[in-house]
Amino acid sequence: MAHVLGQNQYGKAENRIVHVRRGSARHEIKDLNVSVSLSGAFEDVHLHGSNADCLPTDTVKNTVFAFAKQYGIDSAEDFGILLARHFVDDTERGVVHRARVRIEEYAWERIPAADGGEGTGHSFVRSGQETRTAEIGYDGASVRVISGLRDLVVLNSTGSEFRGYLKDRYTTLQEARDRILATQVTARWRYGHTGRDDDSAPHWDHCYARVKRQLLEAFAGTYSHSLQQTLHAMGTHVLDHSAEVDEIRLELPNKHHFLVDLEPFGLHNDDEVYYAADRMYGLIEGTVHREGVVPVIPVT
Amino acid sequence: MAHVLGQNQYGKAENRIVHVRRGSARHEIKDLNVSVSLSGAFEDVHLHGSNADCLPTDTVKNTVFAFAKQYGIDSAEDFGILLARHFVDDTERGVVHRARVRIEEYAWERIPAADGGEGTGHSFVRSGQETRTAEIGYDGASVRVISGLRDLVVLNSTGSEFRGYLKDRYTTLQEARDRILATQVTARWRYGHTGRDDDSAPHWDHCYARVKRQLLEAFAGTYSHSLQQTLHAMGTHVLDHSAEVDEIRLELPNKHHFLVDLEPFGLHNDDEVYYAADRMYGLIEGTVHREGVVPVIPVT
Amino acid sequence: MAHVLGQNQYGKAENRIVHVRRGSARHEIKDLNVSVSLSGAFEDVHLHGSNADCLPTDTVKNTVFAFAKQYGIDSAEDFGILLARHFVDDTERGVVHRARVRIEEYAWERIPAADGGEGTGHSFVRSGQETRTAEIGYDGASVRVISGLRDLVVLNSTGSEFRGYLKDRYTTLQEARDRILATQVTARWRYGHTGRDDDSAPHWDHCYARVKRQLLEAFAGTYSHSLQQTLHAMGTHVLDHSAEVDEIRLELPNKHHFLVDLEPFGLHNDDEVYYAADRMYGLIEGTVHREGVVPVIPVT
Amino acid sequence: MAHVLGQNQYGKAENRIVHVRRGSARHEIKDLNVSVSLSGAFEDVHLHGSNADCLPTDTVKNTVFAFAKQYGIDSAEDFGILLARHFVDDTERGVVHRARVRIEEYAWERIPAADGGEGTGHSFVRSGQETRTAEIGYDGASVRVISGLRDLVVLNSTGSEFRGYLKDRYTTLQEARDRILATQVTARWRYGHTGRDDDSAPHWDHCYARVKRQLLEAFAGTYSHSLQQTLHAMGTHVLDHSAEVDEIRLELPNKHHFLVDLEPFGLHNDDEVYYAADRMYGLIEGTVHREGVVPVIPVT
Repeated sequence: MAHVLGQNQYGKAENRIVHVRRGSARHEIKDLNVSVSLSGAFEDVHLHGSNADCLPTDTVKNTVFAFAKQYGIDSAEDFGILLARHFVDDTERGVVHRARVRIEEYAWERIPAADGGEGTGHSFVRSGQETRTAEIGYDGASVRVISGLRDLVVLNSTGSEFRGYLKDRYTTLQEARDRILATQVTARWRYGHTGRDDDSAPHWDHCYARVKRQLLEAFAGTYSHSLQQTLHAMGTHVLDHSAEVDEIRLELPNKHHFLVDLEPFGLHNDDEVYYAADRMYGLIEGTVHREGVVPVIPVT
Repeated sequence: MAHVLGQNQYGKAENRIVHVRRGSARHEIKDLNVSVSLSGAFEDVHLHGSNADCLPTDTVKNTVFAFAKQYGIDSAEDFGILLARHFVDDTERGVVHRARVRIEEYAWERIPAADGGEGTGHSFVRSGQETRTAEIGYDGASVRVISGLRDLVVLNSTGSEFRGYLKDRYTTLQEARDRILATQVTARWRYGHTGRDDDSAPHWDHCYARVKRQLLEAFAGTYSHSLQQTLHAMGTHVLDHSAEVDEIRLELPNKHHFLVDLEPFGLHNDDEVYYAADRMYGLIEGTVHREGVVPVIPVT
Repeated sequence: MAHVLGQNQYGKAENRIVHVRRGSARHEIKDLNVSVSLSGAFEDVHLHGSNADCLPTDTVKNTVFAFAKQYGIDSAEDFGILLARHFVDDTERGVVHRARVRIEEYAWERIPAADGGEGTGHSFVRSGQETRTAEIGYDGASVRVISGLRDLVVLNSTGSEFRGYLKDRYTTLQEARDRILATQVTARWRYGHTGRDDDSAPHWDHCYARVKRQLLEAFAGTYSHSLQQTLHAMGTHVLDHSAEVDEIRLELPNKHHFLVDLEPFGLHNDDEVYYAADRMYGLIEGTVHREGVVPVIPVT
Repeated sequence: MAHVLGQNQYGKAENRIVHVRRGSARHEIKDLNVSVSLSGAFEDVHLHGSNADCLPTDTVKNTVFAFAKQYGIDSAEDFGILLARHFVDDTERGVVHRARVRIEEYAWERIPAADGGEGTGHSFVRSGQETRTAEIGYDGASVRVISGLRDLVVLNSTGSEFRGYLKDRYTTLQEARDRILATQVTARWRYGHTGRDDDSAPHWDHCYARVKRQLLEAFAGTYSHSLQQTLHAMGTHVLDHSAEVDEIRLELPNKHHFLVDLEPFGLHNDDEVYYAADRMYGLIEGTVHREGVVPVIPVT
C-alpha cells in the first residue's frame, strides 16, 4: 500500500551571526542565532532523489549572512520577516510555500569606564539574564510574529500559599501558608500584526522591553494562591497593557524550594534555610488570549 | 475587555523512577523519567485562586511511584497508559479531561562475568546509545501512543551524494559525488492502537526493538541523493514492515563532516580527514503516514 | 605486590542551599551550590570496609544546612571558611586532616516596582551574568581562599590585532590588523589571607565586586596584540589595584568571530557581518602573581 | 612592584577530527576531539605584545589535521604522542618546552545487515556508552600517558550496605543493610611507558578494552561496605591485572537511589521502587598506585 509524505520542512539551523554597526565610535552589536525552515513542493526530493527544486541549506545560510549586510539588523523580528518573505517570494518556481524563521537573541551591555563614565564604545559584556526569542512565519500572504523569552528566573520569598486543593488516596502534601515561589519563565506572545496592506509594524524592541517588564511586574505584584493563578495574572497583565499583543503562552516550571527540617539538630527553621530541588518539578502551562481571537501558539 | 483562558495543562515533570524486579537472583530494572500533564476544568484555579479542583502535582508524583509498586512496569507504554487512564477516569468530579504522559527510558545491559559468563544477575551498565521515548494521550475515550527515540547517531562514510540542486544568487555550494552522511536521529511513530473495545495492544518492547532496527537498516541500506530522500526511505521502511505503526515523523540534523583542505601543506586529502562541525547544520524533518490516516504527530 | 592508597577525598557535592534573611520587609537572599571534600585517615574505609572513621556524606549535607541557620551566610567565602574549619577541627578523633569547600554563587537582583520604585522587598530576578566561585581550603593551621568567576562573556569589536607570529609549514593564517576579540572569562584569584592570628579577613563581597570590575576595565582598556597579552594585562591590573590578592589565574577561550566572505554575492563585508564559531577555539591560560609569592592555583 | 608571569599555556582546543580508513570496502573510522596546550618561552607574547615566538593556534589546528593524513590514527594515544613530540621537538627556536595533548574518543559500532550479517562496511552507529580519554605529556625527554574514560554508568541492585559509620550531632542517616549502589565512573590511569630508549609502547587499544573490562568486573564482583571500598577494589583490580599501568585514579559520584516511602498509600515498598536523585550527591575520589611509584595524576 502506498504511503503518503506528510508535513515536511528543511533548512539551516543555528546560524550564529554577529552584526556590528560601526557608523560612529560607538558601535552597536546584534548577536543572533537564526534557524530557517522551508516547506513547499518537495515531494520529488523526498520520493525520487531529484534535487532540482531543492535550495541547498548552504544557500539558506549564505542568505542569512548576506541579508545582514544588505539590510542590517534592526531587530530580530524585522530581520526574520525579511528572510521569511524572501524565501517564499523570491525562490524560483515558487517551490517554497511557507517559511519559518526562529531567532534567539543574546543581549549585551556596554562595559563602563573605570570612572563610571561612558567607556570605549566598542567594549561589551553579555548580559546573560534571559534569552530573547522570535518566530516569524510567512505563507505568501501574511506574516505571523511570535516573540518571547526563556530562562528568566524569578523568585518571591513570600506572598505565596497553596491550600484547599483536591485530595485523593495518594495525597500527602501539607498545605503551605507561606512558601517561596520561584520559576524559570518561558513566554511566547503573538502580535496582531500581519504585514498586510497598511498594517504597520510595532517597534519590536520597545515592545519586547515592555512585555518583559510587565511579566516581572505581574510576578512580583501578585499574591499567589497557585502558580496557575500567577501564570494567569502574568498573561492578563500583558494583554491589558500591550495592545499589540493578541495572545500569550507561558510555561512555568515550579522551581521547588523545600524548607529543610532542622529539628533533629535542635534548631528551628524559621523560613530561612531552603533546599533548591532540580527534579521532579511541577510544570504549569497556559495560554491567555483576547476574546474573539483564535489562539495559535503551539503547545510544546 | 475580557480575556480568555486558552489551552492549559499542568502536572509533575521528570519523575525519575527506577523499578527493580527481584523475583529471582536475576534482577530486572526499568529506569524511567516520567512527566505527566493534565488538562480539564481548571478555570477556577487560574482565575479565582480557588484550588478545590486542583490535584496537587505532588499527588501526581506520588501516584507515579505508587503505581510502579501496584502494577509493576511492563513497558514504558503500558505504564503510561495505566497512569493516563487513572488521572482521567479516577480523579474526583471528573475535573481531568485529558492526560498526557511522556516517558524517557534509559537502557541497561548486564555486566558479564570475567570469564564471559552470566555475571551476578544484579550488576548493570547503562547502554548509553539512544534514549527511548513514549507519549501517551488519553481523553476518556481512546488512547494515543506515540513511541520514539532520540540521540541515535549514525554515519555512512560513503554512498551519499548531493547534486543537481536549485541554484540562486546566494548559492556557492559545490556538488558532492561522495560525502559522509551523518545524523542524530529523533524519531516518533504513532501506533494504530486506540485501547478501545477488543483492540489488543501490541507488545511494545518488541515493536520498539524492531522499529529501531528498521531505522538503522534503512539508513545503512539507502544510497542517498539527499538527507530528505534518506528520511523518506527510513519512514517508508518502517511503515512497510511494522504493521502496528500508522505514522512516523523523523527529525534529522545533518551533522556536517567537511573534508579538510590539506593542499596548502602539500598533502592530498583523499577522502580521509574530516572536520566534524557543530553549528550551523541542515535540519530535515518530515512525516510519512499510511494512506487514509490523519497524521497527528506534532511538528516541533 | 602491595598497592598504595594515594590521595583520596570524599564528601557531599552540590548542596543547593538558598538562605533568606527576613529581618525586615526587605528580604535578602543568598543562593549557593556548596561542595565539600574531606581528606584524612580513611585507609580503613578504603581497604577494610570499616566505616568507623567515616563521617557520612549525608551528615556533611546536614551540616551545610544547619550551619546556614546557626551562623547565617555573610558571604560565600565566610560560609566556606566556617564549614572547612568545622570539619577539620570538630570531627571526632581528628580523622579529617584537610577540608576543601567549593561554592558557586548565583546573583539575584530586585524586581523594581512598575513606577521604577523600590518594589516589594521580596521579589527577585536572577542576574544570570557570571557565576561567582569560591574555594576554601583548611588543613588545621591556615585557610586558603581562592575566589573567582566563570562564564563572564566579553567582546571588543575593535582594538585587537594579531600579527608578526611564528610561521611554519602548517601556517596558513592571515594576519589580522583589526579583529573582534571575544572570550568567556574564567578567573580565580587567591587572597593573601590565611586566617592565622590577627590576620583579619577582607570584605569578601566588596573584593569580589572590585576584582570583577577590574577584569572588565582591563579587557576594555587594553589594545590587544594577542589574547595572551590581554590576559596578562587583566591579571596585572587586578594585582596592581587589589592589594588583598596575591595571585590570579585566567582561562580565556578565544571565541572566534570570523568575518564572512560576501564577495561571491557581490557584497563587500566592511567588518560588519561575522560568524560566531563554537569549536575549535584557541585556549589561553596563565597565572600572574606577586614577586616572592609561591603560586598555588592549580592548572586545570 | 613587579609581577611575575607564572605557569602559562595555550593552544587550540576541541579539534573535532574524523578519520576514515578506506583501504577496503570495509571502512574504519576514528572520531576524536583533540585539544593541544603548549608551554615554553612565551614571556614576550604576554608582556610585550610581541608574537615572534607565538605559533598561532590556527597552525596548531592545521597540524592536527595534517598529521592525521600523514601518519593516520592508530590510536588516540599514538596520535597524541606524535603531536606532542612534534610541537616540542620541531617548533623553531625551541620555544615550546612542553606539550600536553588531550583527546576524547567516541566509539562507533557497525550497523549489521537486516539478516544479522555483515552490513555495508561503511555504515556505523555511535555506541554512546562511555567517552574514552587520553592525555599525553611530553617535555622533550619523556612522554607521560594518562588514559581514561568518563560517563560509564554502572549499578548494582544489591550487594551493597553502609553501616557502622561515625556519628555526630548532625547525623540522621539510617544504616542500610541492602541498597542500590550506582555511580558514573571517571577513571584515569597512567602507563609506565615513557617513550625513552627501548621502552616499547603497549598496544593502547587492547589495554583500554582490558582496563574498562576490569573496572566493570571489579564493580560487579565486589560486595560493598562503602563506595570508598568499591573504588579501592576497582583500582587494585586494574593494577593486579594490567602490568602496564602504574597508577589509577577514580572519581565516583554516588548516584543515590532512594527507596520511596509508600506506607502512606497502604503499600509496602519491598526494595522495588526507587527515586533516582540528581543533587546533592556523594563524591568519592582516590588514587591507587604501585609501591615505589610517585603518583602524578592530578586531583581535579
